[in-house]
Amino acid sequence: MSAPSPGYSITVRAEAPAAIDTTGVVAAAVASAGGALTALDVVESHGDKLVVDVTCNASDADHADRITAAIAAVPGVAVRKVSDRTFLLHLGGKLEVVPKVPLKHRDDLSRAYTPGVARVCLAIAENPDDARRLTIKRNTVAVVTDGSAVLGLGNIGPAAALPVMEGKAALFKQFAGVDAWPVCLDTQDTEQIISIVKAIAPVYGGVNLEDISAPRCFEIEQRLRDELDIPVFHDDQHGTAIVTLAALRNALRVVDKKLEDVRIVVSGVGAAGHAIVRLLDAQGATDIIGCDRRGALDPEAEHADEFRGWIARNTNPSRTTGTLKEVVRGADVFIGVSAPNLLDGDDIASMAKDAIVFAMANPDPEVDPVAASHHAAVVATGRSDYANQINNVLAFPGFFRGLLDAGARDITDEMMIAAASAIADCVHPDELNASYIVPSVFDPEVSPAVAAAVRSAAGTERRG
Amino acid sequence: MSAPSPGYSITVRAEAPAAIDTTGVVAAAVASAGGALTALDVVESHGDKLVVDVTCNASDADHADRITAAIAAVPGVAVRKVSDRTFLLHLGGKLEVVPKVPLKHRDDLSRAYTPGVARVCLAIAENPDDARRLTIKRNTVAVVTDGSAVLGLGNIGPAAALPVMEGKAALFKQFAGVDAWPVCLDTQDTEQIISIVKAIAPVYGGVNLEDISAPRCFEIEQRLRDELDIPVFHDDQHGTAIVTLAALRNALRVVDKKLEDVRIVVSGVGAAGHAIVRLLDAQGATDIIGCDRRGALDPEAEHADEFRGWIARNTNPSRTTGTLKEVVRGADVFIGVSAPNLLDGDDIASMAKDAIVFAMANPDPEVDPVAASHHAAVVATGRSDYANQINNVLAFPGFFRGLLDAGARDITDEMMIAAASAIADCVHPDELNASYIVPSVFDPEVSPAVAAAVRSAAGTERRG
Repeated sequence: MSAPSPGYSITVRAEAPAAIDTTGVVAAAVASAGGALTALDVVESHGDKLVVDVTCNASDADHADRITAAIAAVPGVAVRKVSDRTFLLHLGGKLEVVPKVPLKHRDDLSRAYTPGVARVCLAIAENPDDARRLTIKRNTVAVVTDGSAVLGLGNIGPAAALPVMEGKAALFKQFAGVDAWPVCLDTQDTEQIISIVKAIAPVYGGVNLEDISAPRCFEIEQRLRDELDIPVFHDDQHGTAIVTLAALRNALRVVDKKLEDVRIVVSGVGAAGHAIVRLLDAQGATDIIGCDRRGALDPEAEHADEFRGWIARNTNPSRTTGTLKEVVRGADVFIGVSAPNLLDGDDIASMAKDAIVFAMANPDPEVDPVAASHHAAVVATGRSDYANQINNVLAFPGFFRGLLDAGARDITDEMMIAAASAIADCVHPDELNASYIVPSVFDPEVSPAVAAAVRSAAGTERRG
Repeated sequence: MSAPSPGYSITVRAEAPAAIDTTGVVAAAVASAGGALTALDVVESHGDKLVVDVTCNASDADHADRITAAIAAVPGVAVRKVSDRTFLLHLGGKLEVVPKVPLKHRDDLSRAYTPGVARVCLAIAENPDDARRLTIKRNTVAVVTDGSAVLGLGNIGPAAALPVMEGKAALFKQFAGVDAWPVCLDTQDTEQIISIVKAIAPVYGGVNLEDISAPRCFEIEQRLRDELDIPVFHDDQHGTAIVTLAALRNALRVVDKKLEDVRIVVSGVGAAGHAIVRLLDAQGATDIIGCDRRGALDPEAEHADEFRGWIARNTNPSRTTGTLKEVVRGADVFIGVSAPNLLDGDDIASMAKDAIVFAMANPDPEVDPVAASHHAAVVATGRSDYANQINNVLAFPGFFRGLLDAGARDITDEMMIAAASAIADCVHPDELNASYIVPSVFDPEVSPAVAAAVRSAAGTERRG
């Protein structure tokens, strides 16, 4: 059972006798059931009876039931109702659309709406680029999904994906002041998705593709990049690649190795794996081995899609063959964006000295991070309950902030490398160690640094 | 030249000698050029020199230039720069997307985003109706246009239409707390629009179609109503029809006539005219004559589209023929949603006693309202600078508030009639007169009254 998490926080409202030890007994009941108590509030008092709200973190739904039962089992205590704080938070959705202009009287209306707005419309009709100045296009990003590969949940469809896209949009605003809007498409047809995103593009200054399954995500992204004049970014690919590169830069500093010298095994050649391999290649890595579930990709074999074929052709210069467990032997770096529990501590022990292990499968990593840490010099995961969380939140808000500020129309490798360097450099030399290779997602320095790096790379691009 | 309007407000920043009469002289210059001064602020003072911001309303761009020239012509005065307050207001767009949930620390993130959000996603995957409870779908409307018929500007395209859609969305929030989002589509193909709106629907609890040209708007609306499980409302049709019916109810009260007894001539059989005719018919009007630019529609002729055909077949029971000027003779009510200056005072004089004239072409009505008022008992327009403005803002915010609150999946005539009655009844009996047949758009009573009427009609519907 995983540790209690605030993602599974419940509030149990209970009636209890008004005795001196009531709250203590209730707290003990929560603890005995393995719950992590976070608050105990008396909400009503009636002479001989108290009503208390017991808020605690559970591990999952069954655990929440067991905690509730433990509270109900305290003599004299009756549970009135159980609220799930996560569900309460999502009630009615997590975003609102708010006017930035006053609309209190007639003059406001005359400027913001008719008749004044007509002149603004005509200005844009005459000079379409003015839309980037006079409309929300200047600061707005579409968060587009078809719900085909949502978190670790798989193909749950567009309606069920919406809470994730709302959360993403909230993060865009919170971390970088970017207005982002969920676009959850009720189709998984590649051509239709491309044509819809092109059709809705007038409102947006950028497109963030999200949770679209491979290999469709590659074609959708490539075609939209070719056919739109706003930047298109598939976060599952490039956000992950940028933060991985940032973490790897710092991990290599910790172990004093160089990117161009190390052997890197990448497990998983879907959206994230593909982008990681390409970005590491662009940044100068020379010895990458891509693995799917059968092991090292065979450069000679026919591959199901051109993207997997690209990895096979452009990596593995030593023509190493074998299963993942075999090729990881002697490698300096393991990067996993694949599936749980593919490796064990012995596999990590077989790696080169001062090995680096990024086991990012969620929620269960490719190798148990504690077991890995007995043999590797640096271990990172995608989870928040271990050190070194590789979290896209470090990249995408600032990245789009920079793109929008620069009025960028494309995304380049240079921008992504610059963003990775900026994230890495937010860990100051005196902070850097094996347990702190990436900054906290709440580090306020990160997003502005990433934005500045992207703006600067975009400027170089346009001058060049 | 039309009167100076706050939709054309400029601020002229000028340097002037620091004399006792400087501001008076500048104000006089504005007045001499016909500008309406609204503010005169000294923003800097340098011993012998003042910097003043002169804010005033102009009629149009040429007029603004003449006012600026008049200020510059004052001896000793130098104009530094001229700002257009309407353009300033639109800089960067008029909407922002704001998180409703805190995202300040890790626990927030765990609930609003991963891992907590996964449970909310799964709940919706299991029970899709939960999307109306746990996502922004509960309170969010798409404002969809293809930019084909924007205001009086015509087919200016989706990017140039965006400032209007932003304004509309701002009004939705301001007047009814509805979160609305602009969807400006870069296609004018009927089938593609239908398929895109269906595909983006998971995020929305309703669709407001806007500024889509007839007859495509009819088919798009009808098909979407048939194929979606959320309400679809074409504001140019139904918003206008609702407010027209509301105004007509009160106008008939003023002249003491009954809807079922009066002859109504409707000029214009596009989006608005069609919806007005249908709603008046549903409400019990018996003698409606629809006119296009050639005059009364011929019920025997072939019509270009089925919607025009419907009007021809279902109206004009007296089989009246002739031009608009001819058929308006003896009519009790004229409703114009067509083109400027089709009628003059003499035509209105030829109408029945106590005639009612709604001349709603914008910005120039079908008949000069002042000329009409010499002969008609009640005159209304679409403009804010005459009495009785027929303004959709009275209807659409509250209408969607009611739809969303009721979880409505369709829109019925009953809802529209109830909304019209609610608007009409916001003019209290002691307020009602020929110059006040509709409430002010800023009357805070209107939107809640419309919402309540729609909720109630939706409830009746579901029980029935």
